[in-house]
Amino acid sequence: MNSFGKLLTLTSFGESHGPAMGGVLDGMPAGVAIDLEKLQRFVDRRRPGQPLATPRDEKDCVEILSGIYQGKTLGTPIGFVVRNEDRRSEDYASLADVFRPSHADYTYEGKYGLRDPRGGGRASARETLTRVVAGALAMQVLEPMGIEIHAKATRVGDATEEQDFSQAIALAHEQGDTLGAEVSCVITGVPAGLGEPVFGKLHARLAMAMMSINAAKGFDYGLGFGFATARGSEVTDRFVMKDGRIGTETNYSGGIQGGISNGEDICFRVAFRPVPTLPRGMEAMRRGGEPVELRPGGRHDVCVVPRVIPVVEAMAALVILDNCLLNAKNDKGMFSNLLSGGR
Amino acid sequence: MNSFGKLLTLTSFGESHGPAMGGVLDGMPAGVAIDLEKLQRFVDRRRPGQPLATPRDEKDCVEILSGIYQGKTLGTPIGFVVRNEDRRSEDYASLADVFRPSHADYTYEGKYGLRDPRGGGRASARETLTRVVAGALAMQVLEPMGIEIHAKATRVGDATEEQDFSQAIALAHEQGDTLGAEVSCVITGVPAGLGEPVFGKLHARLAMAMMSINAAKGFDYGLGFGFATARGSEVTDRFVMKDGRIGTETNYSGGIQGGISNGEDICFRVAFRPVPTLPRGMEAMRRGGEPVELRPGGRHDVCVVPRVIPVVEAMAALVILDNCLLNAKNDKGMFSNLLSGGR
Amino acid sequence: MNSFGKLLTLTSFGESHGPAMGGVLDGMPAGVAIDLEKLQRFVDRRRPGQPLATPRDEKDCVEILSGIYQGKTLGTPIGFVVRNEDRRSEDYASLADVFRPSHADYTYEGKYGLRDPRGGGRASARETLTRVVAGALAMQVLEPMGIEIHAKATRVGDATEEQDFSQAIALAHEQGDTLGAEVSCVITGVPAGLGEPVFGKLHARLAMAMMSINAAKGFDYGLGFGFATARGSEVTDRFVMKDGRIGTETNYSGGIQGGISNGEDICFRVAFRPVPTLPRGMEAMRRGGEPVELRPGGRHDVCVVPRVIPVVEAMAALVILDNCLLNAKNDKGMFSNLLSGGR
Amino acid sequence: MNSFGKLLTLTSFGESHGPAMGGVLDGMPAGVAIDLEKLQRFVDRRRPGQPLATPRDEKDCVEILSGIYQGKTLGTPIGFVVRNEDRRSEDYASLADVFRPSHADYTYEGKYGLRDPRGGGRASARETLTRVVAGALAMQVLEPMGIEIHAKATRVGDATEEQDFSQAIALAHEQGDTLGAEVSCVITGVPAGLGEPVFGKLHARLAMAMMSINAAKGFDYGLGFGFATARGSEVTDRFVMKDGRIGTETNYSGGIQGGISNGEDICFRVAFRPVPTLPRGMEAMRRGGEPVELRPGGRHDVCVVPRVIPVVEAMAALVILDNCLLNAKNDKGMFSNLLSGGR
Repeated sequence: MNSFGKLLTLTSFGESHGPAMGGVLDGMPAGVAIDLEKLQRFVDRRRPGQPLATPRDEKDCVEILSGIYQGKTLGTPIGFVVRNEDRRSEDYASLADVFRPSHADYTYEGKYGLRDPRGGGRASARETLTRVVAGALAMQVLEPMGIEIHAKATRVGDATEEQDFSQAIALAHEQGDTLGAEVSCVITGVPAGLGEPVFGKLHARLAMAMMSINAAKGFDYGLGFGFATARGSEVTDRFVMKDGRIGTETNYSGGIQGGISNGEDICFRVAFRPVPTLPRGMEAMRRGGEPVELRPGGRHDVCVVPRVIPVVEAMAALVILDNCLLNAKNDKGMFSNLLSGGR
Repeated sequence: MNSFGKLLTLTSFGESHGPAMGGVLDGMPAGVAIDLEKLQRFVDRRRPGQPLATPRDEKDCVEILSGIYQGKTLGTPIGFVVRNEDRRSEDYASLADVFRPSHADYTYEGKYGLRDPRGGGRASARETLTRVVAGALAMQVLEPMGIEIHAKATRVGDATEEQDFSQAIALAHEQGDTLGAEVSCVITGVPAGLGEPVFGKLHARLAMAMMSINAAKGFDYGLGFGFATARGSEVTDRFVMKDGRIGTETNYSGGIQGGISNGEDICFRVAFRPVPTLPRGMEAMRRGGEPVELRPGGRHDVCVVPRVIPVVEAMAALVILDNCLLNAKNDKGMFSNLLSGGR
Repeated sequence: MNSFGKLLTLTSFGESHGPAMGGVLDGMPAGVAIDLEKLQRFVDRRRPGQPLATPRDEKDCVEILSGIYQGKTLGTPIGFVVRNEDRRSEDYASLADVFRPSHADYTYEGKYGLRDPRGGGRASARETLTRVVAGALAMQVLEPMGIEIHAKATRVGDATEEQDFSQAIALAHEQGDTLGAEVSCVITGVPAGLGEPVFGKLHARLAMAMMSINAAKGFDYGLGFGFATARGSEVTDRFVMKDGRIGTETNYSGGIQGGISNGEDICFRVAFRPVPTLPRGMEAMRRGGEPVELRPGGRHDVCVVPRVIPVVEAMAALVILDNCLLNAKNDKGMFSNLLSGGR
Repeated sequence: MNSFGKLLTLTSFGESHGPAMGGVLDGMPAGVAIDLEKLQRFVDRRRPGQPLATPRDEKDCVEILSGIYQGKTLGTPIGFVVRNEDRRSEDYASLADVFRPSHADYTYEGKYGLRDPRGGGRASARETLTRVVAGALAMQVLEPMGIEIHAKATRVGDATEEQDFSQAIALAHEQGDTLGAEVSCVITGVPAGLGEPVFGKLHARLAMAMMSINAAKGFDYGLGFGFATARGSEVTDRFVMKDGRIGTETNYSGGIQGGISNGEDICFRVAFRPVPTLPRGMEAMRRGGEPVELRPGGRHDVCVVPRVIPVVEAMAALVILDNCLLNAKNDKGMFSNLLSGGR
């Protein structure tokens, strides 16, 4: 349940205020050059302490424990940890028997009978750190193949233009309120033929990947929910020849047909809820049923944007690379390749 | 790739115009009474030949091959088949080298190098028959537990009221056009504590399940995409006591917090594209790149509604029962139960 | 639990005296030519009614329901069934509350609380029919690659020479007794580099595959249990050059080092217990604890040999082909292959 | 491939001379008290530096990074690392292009195209450290349930009595030779009903677990290979009443029938090859094909005994606890338990 992927598998561990977050990325192809500085730069994009993000100061240095030797992947599992350096657990002591509204406190206790109350424990968005490290590794395989992944915010509360997002966040911050957001992602360079039919459709796996991110509430691809109100005659992607290959004139389908990529850009959206921790205060409930007023103060993010952007990209990278590896087995030259020992 | 679920697993097989569709449902608890007539009635809800659905006449009789003995589940895998009785393959012979727009013809051939061109082969929505059989079996475990699943269309093209849907479909049928739709589903009776954190969040698995249905293009739950434009102060679900248990005053969260059910109704939506086969005709492309005009005629559905409704319910049932089984292992009385041999 | 394999997955269903045995083989590469008559001939090798095997007469005709079109695999799941034609269930009615010694009656009831008492139900060796069908399909991929799998009996009770096996079985049959056996298998043509380190070692997966066959009690490979009494200096496989490739002078290792094939023949043994149904009679126990004498008569096999031989070969074929597919992802030319859509 | 188990999953990482070995144990039930000192004592049993084991001195201190809070499991994944403190990599520099006989050097390079040559890298027996940590955690769940696991050496080269083992190892050490061994394991207290039929038979999973341990070459259970030469009339386990429950008079079956435990002791054997690194020297081969003489010296173990004993116990504990969790779903009281949210 804490593992993700079929041939490329990320196993994640860590509580927000425990000793460390970490993970194991298994299934990476062997012999791939890894640039660790580039990896750290990607991870830094989701770091707290960025403009308008939470001031909690952590270095989030990634330590690779295995699977990379002399700058190349060994084909063995890549274990990594990121220490939790700024653990002011006393901030959370008073929350041990409190269920915060629209948080996971109540449901975790319902499931497990106990929980780590410090900073959300396992339910903290800090868990996404592990995903970003793994995604950054996957990207270093995808990029030389010409596959690129770019996400950006396309809505923050009422604002729909990028130049207005900072102001919207600053205003909500002043008001002690929080904001929802929508993130759009485009994957370019994916050839036709990627994805598995039926239950493993490429968009179904992207949906699961994105909806597993903290605070995600909706996913669609191509025209998405816009299809519901459309007529077939308006939204059919007519085939045309493009640079000698078969392509489509429009891309309502979002680059995927029947669960398999068609060579066009893959486009999807993810909706995120406002951060449920309201700086201005919120009414929680004690285990026994008594209401309690919380004043969390200003240490929390107002909006998952901008820190969630690299998380979306990272999860997309894991799904795409996993499907590349799954596709390898359909290689037309398989017989000869297999005979040479997979080399 | 053709299997779905963790402890309750559906493996699906069958091409639309091959000998049969079928599946294996593994992991059903032993000793559950199964009403086969009730199962057939549920399956009949997605049968072709219903009002405004395609006139292709098939009986779709489910034959159970294993796993049920004297009216009860054995705990062994339930194998089942449904014969494809109305196979006019000649209708499709001319399509062998044609890629229909917004269909899976081109992408399947891209992935596999060959395909069964008759009626969409494996990519046909007829594959959902297997899901409905399995879901109907799962429901017969859930219902005695008080868990019910109800889906309905909440949008068909421009129409948003149920009484207008038939007319909208009839009109599009006359025009040789097709319509998109939105289906909403509510699951009642799920106790708090169901779902797995991190990658197996209950809504992430529902998202994957729904997005794996043919023509699905979007998924959200609770306030869903509405969260993106919301302020945290407006959409927090305040805890209240309800009949002696902890509940929430509102249900913006859609019954799930942190990926785990909170005891409120679980509510989600699925967006579907218009059926891509346009009766009025559409421009396709031959393998070599030449355009070709197709006139499919009126044998196809205008809209996935109403036949997709039981498919949505069936996939939800598989996800919920699988999570019930996963939860069994956290049983507080586990130690004593395990010692009695799991009995 | 009724599925086997990672990328090539067999899902099995069927009770011995239910309507049918069957399975779904998912993950077969697309475009492979399948000779169905050859498949049936392989399946016939484990059929009852062979010399010295049980006289229960069944045709065991394999019906393919999906995944093969115009003589080639589609890359979609191959569903198949074999009807149970000779179901004299009345023979078994008296066994409903009886636990036969060294059978699975008591343990199945312990686990599930109920069972199908007819002919062993799911625990019957008839389940291996499904494995043989799937293995025969896998072999039709392996053979053109130059990989061959041959098993044979190397011990039947006291007899160790092939010409003595028939006589040993005939004698035990006269005495109303049964015999154990040892089967040895050699896989030739496997290149170096097949297998997964750590938990998925090639021999570990072969061990699980073989031990999952009914009546299997032991597995070893290469020198096997003979290693326990050996000195390192006597059993080291010295490297030598063979036809321009690196090979080993001896093959104590059985073709696998560190869980990965080294290019030499892969050799393993499987030990089987005597058939637990003694024709001369045996003392069983009723559910309530009263002893009961059973006289099963002569309809049962004396020894798993010869019918188990194709089962061993089939399970080996599934393991080897699955590992070939897993290896494809390490293909040196992966980058270019992936870019061409896995084609 | 570096993960093991179905509901209780161990994911392992680490190269012998990389920064650390480590793992993630996912699926542990919540609320279980863990004694970390007891865990460390168990781990110390496989530590180098024991009498007659290799003098490589490492502390092998286990650091728990997540999943345990205030002395109890949280139900979240337990991440842990053990630093590799004594990394004299220069010892291995000369081995970069050398394939040692009967080692994994050649096969790893065949599979991956490159490898970490330091101390065997991922193929080192040091990887079993991760298994011992995970197994020690599993045992702390099993022991309060009355399930105990005890392994011991039953053969070391020619010696079959415990008091002779030290002398046999000392003698081989003097001679610069190594010895094979056989380890026998007994699991007591397992109730009837544990295990999954068909592919997940309890003994098949034990076989895979044991055969995945470095240097394992054979596995059997109950009478094992002795069954091959037996007659059915001699090895049938007659049912008898024992303390009011149904048991068997003899235990040729080794506590498992049809893949499911029958309440008797579970007994199995594992055969191990002599350590392939011969202190007296051995002939290896360079990548180019030239032979090279190696003189590894005395830093290596003579025999996997005694250090492999806790590894066998640990792998058995992982299999048994995983099956306990799988069995929980068949709980007779499932309906009521599920309704209370799995609590």
